[in-house]
Amino acid sequence: MVDAIENALAAIKFGSDGLVAAVAQQHDTGEILMLAWMNRDAVRATLSEGRACYWSRSRGRLWRKGETSGQVQLLRELRLDCDADAVLLMVDQQGVACHTGRRSCFFRSWRGDRWTIIADPQISPETLYPDRH
Amino acid sequence: MVDAIENALAAIKFGSDGLVAAVAQQHDTGEILMLAWMNRDAVRATLSEGRACYWSRSRGRLWRKGETSGQVQLLRELRLDCDADAVLLMVDQQGVACHTGRRSCFFRSWRGDRWTIIADPQISPETLYPDRH
Repeated sequence: MVDAIENALAAIKFGSDGLVAAVAQQHDTGEILMLAWMNRDAVRATLSEGRACYWSRSRGRLWRKGETSGQVQLLRELRLDCDADAVLLMVDQQGVACHTGRRSCFFRSWRGDRWTIIADPQISPETLYPDRH
Repeated sequence: MVDAIENALAAIKFGSDGLVAAVAQQHDTGEILMLAWMNRDAVRATLSEGRACYWSRSRGRLWRKGETSGQVQLLRELRLDCDADAVLLMVDQQGVACHTGRRSCFFRSWRGDRWTIIADPQISPETLYPDRH
């Protein structure tokens, strides 16, 4: 398992900052949930644990998606693009992906001349992150 | 139109390199086509022309998707994520998105212990880019 994961890592071209862009997509509906970043340890953790783990640029540490909120992303498939500098995580999102309580982080759409909010929160941030409120 | 586009740009948080990550998704099937990068001029061109324009990091210039191959991406909708540092382009891909001739750039899947190619080219790169061959 460890050797296999090292093989997976060997094909990925991490940037000069050690990161690769990662898109998370709900595996069955095709909905784009979020875009985040992964370093080598995040890819290792994701493949070995079967759930999405990212690198939080703002916190400067590994971020097991859902570690606080419980809204984990179960990994169904990991894909790599032609240039090997972006990955696609097909996941089964438990609950919501966005810290605002919305299913997807991409909830603003450019409509005519303004950004329009196109999705409502399904759960309140206070419920997702009780320790922060 | 120009003022509206400047309003759109004002909400986007471009990185220190002037770029924002952009995911292109086929608007009706949900298929993820590619991940690329946009600077302010690329977003301006995309909104004003109604087709995807990116910033090519390798070539250091604007890249109107399909300008050489004819495989343009007609813009259906532009979305912005919660942190405003990633955009989602919902497009109608004409032909294929990948320079290898495959519909999507994410044609490698991690299966067990190896990266497996899961899609065949629909057109040869020689046909897409006759001047390069």
